[in-house]
Amino acid sequence: MRNLGRAPRLHLDGPLARGAVVELGADRVHQLRHVLRLAPGAPVRLFNAESGEWWAELTRLDRRGGEARIVDRLRPPEPAIGPRLAIAPIRPNRLDWLIEKAVELGVGAVDLVLTQRTVVRPARIDRLLAIAVEAAEQCERLSVPPIGGPTELEVWLAGLPPGTRVVVADEEGGEPPLAALGRISDAILLVGPEGGFAPGERRRLAESPGIVRVGLGRRILRSETAALFLLVAHALAREEVRPSCP
Amino acid sequence: MRNLGRAPRLHLDGPLARGAVVELGADRVHQLRHVLRLAPGAPVRLFNAESGEWWAELTRLDRRGGEARIVDRLRPPEPAIGPRLAIAPIRPNRLDWLIEKAVELGVGAVDLVLTQRTVVRPARIDRLLAIAVEAAEQCERLSVPPIGGPTELEVWLAGLPPGTRVVVADEEGGEPPLAALGRISDAILLVGPEGGFAPGERRRLAESPGIVRVGLGRRILRSETAALFLLVAHALAREEVRPSCP
Repeated sequence: MRNLGRAPRLHLDGPLARGAVVELGADRVHQLRHVLRLAPGAPVRLFNAESGEWWAELTRLDRRGGEARIVDRLRPPEPAIGPRLAIAPIRPNRLDWLIEKAVELGVGAVDLVLTQRTVVRPARIDRLLAIAVEAAEQCERLSVPPIGGPTELEVWLAGLPPGTRVVVADEEGGEPPLAALGRISDAILLVGPEGGFAPGERRRLAESPGIVRVGLGRRILRSETAALFLLVAHALAREEVRPSCP
Repeated sequence: MRNLGRAPRLHLDGPLARGAVVELGADRVHQLRHVLRLAPGAPVRLFNAESGEWWAELTRLDRRGGEARIVDRLRPPEPAIGPRLAIAPIRPNRLDWLIEKAVELGVGAVDLVLTQRTVVRPARIDRLLAIAVEAAEQCERLSVPPIGGPTELEVWLAGLPPGTRVVVADEEGGEPPLAALGRISDAILLVGPEGGFAPGERRRLAESPGIVRVGLGRRILRSETAALFLLVAHALAREEVRPSCP
């Protein structure tokens, strides 16, 4: 069997199955032809959460497009789990970086939430999704987190299923994160804008039964750092609850 | 008393004391005159770990330079504590982000460590320090972590004081991070290069009595993400040991 370890990993939506011939989009074709300098016959790895990961052989790669024939499965499908992260938009370069890191850290979904003190125009979702796809390809995960919004905070809160718990990073302090995330499974992680939540929003959050405030210590963190802090805390709390074999 | 909350925070080496007149360097003068558009009479906040934080009034700000007269203290000095982070150099933009985030997360010092698989030319230390200073100014910390190196891994290991414990992120797994960081105070955090440690380096680390391998879960993390993971784990382990008042 070939050494597939260096074959590029490409996320591809849709069912993947032995023998299937899949078409590759124009962006992919450009990447494979001109950036990675591949040619027909070269192996690639195709994946998504529903079908798992398969290796395929490029059968066509030219100006008109690209195709690959799926050969065999490398990894079975996995349920796409991971915490949902809701964050107020931040400056594009910071948000790009956050999306990449969040994907590496296992985020399940990302919601952009508009707050009163949000001063940044939200980035284009398709661009953020492309960043998420690339990060997933690089870090060997099978799923790509959906990215939704932007949604007004009030609407976002109202749309949560009854009983949802939201762990919100509060600069004024709260429960220790490990304790909160250890006792709440399926918590949604919420991080406010750089300027913090406005007083009315804080009151609204305090009134919501599912909101759990956590403090991140005595430090002042930028929004994206607070988000990563919560994602790491979430991962560590899971290991505390069910220690994984190293 | 004036509202000093928006007065720019400027890290300044050297003793700060009531009534002292301090000179501001050319870069600072440029920043205050042309970027922040301040004028004599405007308040600024000057700080370092040894003297604490003081507010001062700009007394001179012109083409020839700048000066400020220190008025009163806002915060007492604090011991500059925080974990030392040793990391193999990574691409400049990623290293910049890491330095900024590490400062927000309370890193005490940063060592750049050269390994066999380090393919990146290390960035200029003075540039990284400037990033660390700016991050410290933005996140309200008093100390700026020193940044040292680059040093060959072997030399770095040999130079550690006897009895030093080094917690190293190992992609092949190890102890759960919270457990390791909870039982070891003053651990140095070590993160290898993108390609991982070379076999000889792994053997060398395994032979070092103070090395503790920790696993970061089933995920594949870039070096800078692993570094931030360890920094957050370090902070959370401290809260587990001595829960802080929110």
